[in-house]
Amino acid sequence: MKLPEGFVASGISAGLKRSGKPDFGLIHSDGPLNWALLSTTNLVHAACVARNRFLLGGGDNVRAVVVNSGNANCATGEQGALDNDAMAAAVAAHLGLAGPDEVLTASTGVVGLRMPVDAILAGVRPLAEAGGDESDGFARAILTTDLTLKQSAVDLPGGARVVGVAKGSGMIHPNMATMLAFVMTDAQVSQAELRQIWQDVAVATFNQVTVDGDTSPNDMAMVLASNRVPADRDDLAAALRQVADELARMIARDGEGATKLITVRVTGAFSDDEARLAARTVAGSPLTKAAVHGSDPNWGRILVALGRSGAQFDPARCHIAVQDVPVYGGAPLPFDEARTSALMESPDVLIGVDLKMGGGQGNAYGCDLTADYVRINADYRT
Amino acid sequence: MKLPEGFVASGISAGLKRSGKPDFGLIHSDGPLNWALLSTTNLVHAACVARNRFLLGGGDNVRAVVVNSGNANCATGEQGALDNDAMAAAVAAHLGLAGPDEVLTASTGVVGLRMPVDAILAGVRPLAEAGGDESDGFARAILTTDLTLKQSAVDLPGGARVVGVAKGSGMIHPNMATMLAFVMTDAQVSQAELRQIWQDVAVATFNQVTVDGDTSPNDMAMVLASNRVPADRDDLAAALRQVADELARMIARDGEGATKLITVRVTGAFSDDEARLAARTVAGSPLTKAAVHGSDPNWGRILVALGRSGAQFDPARCHIAVQDVPVYGGAPLPFDEARTSALMESPDVLIGVDLKMGGGQGNAYGCDLTADYVRINADYRT
Repeated sequence: MKLPEGFVASGISAGLKRSGKPDFGLIHSDGPLNWALLSTTNLVHAACVARNRFLLGGGDNVRAVVVNSGNANCATGEQGALDNDAMAAAVAAHLGLAGPDEVLTASTGVVGLRMPVDAILAGVRPLAEAGGDESDGFARAILTTDLTLKQSAVDLPGGARVVGVAKGSGMIHPNMATMLAFVMTDAQVSQAELRQIWQDVAVATFNQVTVDGDTSPNDMAMVLASNRVPADRDDLAAALRQVADELARMIARDGEGATKLITVRVTGAFSDDEARLAARTVAGSPLTKAAVHGSDPNWGRILVALGRSGAQFDPARCHIAVQDVPVYGGAPLPFDEARTSALMESPDVLIGVDLKMGGGQGNAYGCDLTADYVRINADYRT
Repeated sequence: MKLPEGFVASGISAGLKRSGKPDFGLIHSDGPLNWALLSTTNLVHAACVARNRFLLGGGDNVRAVVVNSGNANCATGEQGALDNDAMAAAVAAHLGLAGPDEVLTASTGVVGLRMPVDAILAGVRPLAEAGGDESDGFARAILTTDLTLKQSAVDLPGGARVVGVAKGSGMIHPNMATMLAFVMTDAQVSQAELRQIWQDVAVATFNQVTVDGDTSPNDMAMVLASNRVPADRDDLAAALRQVADELARMIARDGEGATKLITVRVTGAFSDDEARLAARTVAGSPLTKAAVHGSDPNWGRILVALGRSGAQFDPARCHIAVQDVPVYGGAPLPFDEARTSALMESPDVLIGVDLKMGGGQGNAYGCDLTADYVRINADYRT
């Protein structure tokens, strides 16, 4: 996809993946970028996460983001931090920046193995030379075992543009599913405003994706703004939200072994926070995920997942619909099970919940639980 | 198994299950029983759970527990409460008790369908007449799709006896996995002491079982004491703990689709609570469960599950062992992967974690995640 103004991106193979697939990506700009970051809540986190968080509190002079796939550089101790610094420093030197603090980093792949720094350092020059105004090469380079390329773009009324690129849940020995998202815009927006918008956007989108409840030490969702084109704040927020939401759904749909995207839409909650909590719990319930896989309109599992979510509601008042078919309304409702099951054969399954408690609402995105998920995650040795 | 003194138990088929298998069970005593109860934390809970909780705050004159399988009597509204009351009243009347408040109830099975009360009422007489001094008939009657009978007994030094019976994670349309446990003892113990002991025992055992993270609205673990034989308090507590622990492990081992029992033993935590939280998170992690299924000594998944558990620790200091093989010690350790994987082919897999933070410790019990789990829970229509 065509990048917003002020951005150059590239992706190459630096030899980090045995498959020879692209594994090294770069986004950079000829001017300073405003940026915001959402990162993993896991106490265990990779060197790149720690470094970006540190930079978040300081330097306002970010110019580039370098990403490698194939090695997570996590649980690699002091050496891992040094290797991560070296990656940033090499990019800064090659681009002629003032210093490594102008370069953010991200890694995804194998946990607990030292990063092949020589390959990284050797890759910086060809990576920078491959730079162009399209996002595709970069988008390909950040994937691990994702089955699909994940990109989304929106043009704002005033001419500004938002382009987002993400990777989702692939597995690499010995691994976990890392979510990375990089959203770029040429809209004019202050650092403070961008960070406020991104917080609102990310909690409603990337934070609402659940594949299996396990979180990665490398998860990151980042926005970068090059400040070239005037834009209305609300338009920008809406565009970022739309791109983030689309990437979040792409990630859930491409969850390991998944055959269906599950969207859980909760309304009538006491607050938006409680709506999101309830939606996430339903979308993450193994019993609900398995029922969706079997096209089973099993409202009992949905109700009981809501019950353990922590959201306030009265089971004798809440409503549940599956593919817009009302199945529970404070008590079991009569409905055509065969027809509802047939509707659930779709690759998009919508679970609607009205908690009847207030005005809070939120979505969560998940995927069905399949035998393939187990095979992918159990049988890596075979 | 032979019951403790003062208990009579039975189990029959009352026609609640289409299979014709036993589905109606009774425990009673000719004297008042002291009792304690741990029940589901799910906001959605069945009529039996609500009624037992109410009785917990009042009547000290419990004489019987009646249990049906095949119907959970949950999400059945006001009618469900009336049906549950009717079951207790019928048992009280038949046994000649002072009133229904002397009878506790438990149900497991289909959610959202009205209980077949006529079958229940007709079953009370044959159920009471089948009473004897063995627990086996009762143990069989409370099962749903459990593959194994779950019973455990310990004799105390002074002659008192503890017998426990449980059911675990079976599935009945449209359903969820309900855990029920009933532990009986003839030891002399006050209501207050029994409740204190049970709280300590249950949080360390039944609360530490995880099959898939979904909780049932019918979960219950109950202890009943007939006060016939003098017993040392510590001996009794140890015996209850041993029986509860064994039942908890039996439930985890018989989890849906499971081929292995996973025991996670956390030591060195800041507190016992944090140790239990950490152990439960690892035992419940889908990625860890799948890795155990594949006999993959994948410490990265264990470390990252610990990281999201909420327990305090330093990833650069904690230790992890799989089948007693040290695999991580603040940094990756060299170990024989092939040999460790071979050790993990056992039906008992032990994950040991030392958080190096303090003296807190705790176990959790789980099972491996298999393609059969998905089949059981996705394909009930086929």
